[in-house]
Amino acid sequence: MKRSLGAKTLVYPTPVFVVGTYDAKGKPNVMTASWGGICCSRPPCVAVSLRGATYTHGNIVVRKAFTISIPSEAHVKAADYIGMVSGRDVDKFAATKLTPVRSELVDAPYVKEFPMIVECRLVHTFELGLHTQFVGEVLDVKVDEAALNSDGTADIKKVNPLVFTPDTQAYYGIGAFIAKAFSVGEGI
Amino acid sequence: MKRSLGAKTLVYPTPVFVVGTYDAKGKPNVMTASWGGICCSRPPCVAVSLRGATYTHGNIVVRKAFTISIPSEAHVKAADYIGMVSGRDVDKFAATKLTPVRSELVDAPYVKEFPMIVECRLVHTFELGLHTQFVGEVLDVKVDEAALNSDGTADIKKVNPLVFTPDTQAYYGIGAFIAKAFSVGEGI
Repeated sequence: MKRSLGAKTLVYPTPVFVVGTYDAKGKPNVMTASWGGICCSRPPCVAVSLRGATYTHGNIVVRKAFTISIPSEAHVKAADYIGMVSGRDVDKFAATKLTPVRSELVDAPYVKEFPMIVECRLVHTFELGLHTQFVGEVLDVKVDEAALNSDGTADIKKVNPLVFTPDTQAYYGIGAFIAKAFSVGEGI
Repeated sequence: MKRSLGAKTLVYPTPVFVVGTYDAKGKPNVMTASWGGICCSRPPCVAVSLRGATYTHGNIVVRKAFTISIPSEAHVKAADYIGMVSGRDVDKFAATKLTPVRSELVDAPYVKEFPMIVECRLVHTFELGLHTQFVGEVLDVKVDEAALNSDGTADIKKVNPLVFTPDTQAYYGIGAFIAKAFSVGEGI
């Protein structure tokens, strides 16, 4: 038997993206966002939704670029902090002792210490209500050598990303390998 | 040191959504999609991107509604199968022995056996390239009683959703609770 929880923002899993931007003066900033995901394969695009009131929103409008740095479980304190304070008030890189790296591909910084980063050029801006959805074309994905498999693919258990639960407002880790996709369902 | 993996569709975690629709004749269909996520808080909206070639794409255009049913780890074989065959050729509910339930809120069916379902009314259609992004306003989220905490929130460890890895094409589970959000980062 299912219980109705009402009209709310709740799906599982929800990601923890740390969105990197420069402000108009060139100060690097980061903010944590969980409303987003991949949205197109060709061109490869990822969407991130932000409230108009955020500092990052204005930065993306001006710079037309952003990065997504994906924190590991080890970075949970920093990722949570980055979602609680505004770049208007605080230098979040300094406060977290994280290192901004200037992307060579887009006009935005990423977080050196995080194991996976995605560099995006803004291609669409959609006003959806409280949130603006920014769609970025992925120009590159970079992953720490230590988080790669021997065949050069990214190992999710080594990237060890966070999962956010919108309903209970908590962070969870990634569990065990279950099955190969486009394979386990054959001959059901 | 980071290695460049190129311009590709890769973020972690990526969800496993089973999108439910009716076709023009009223036949219920499901397809598995991993390009999507929450995209607005007010109105509460979720985005799912589908290729124009899919049967579900045409169904959403006609019916202006869809559901997202979130499979548990126990449903991995069915979820994978549902992503490999087309509703043009196969009755996927019959093949998987899953049960379509007609939503009382939108013109779409959901999967009875899956622990969490989201009922959506189509509000935006964005052409992004190979994929069309459908933005649905969430009219209700329904969760199995057995997957709820005592305070009525959804317990991700009981919903036990799948995580898809685009790079290695595999399914993973949800790991351990790590920390409370908007809390662990205080006083960094």
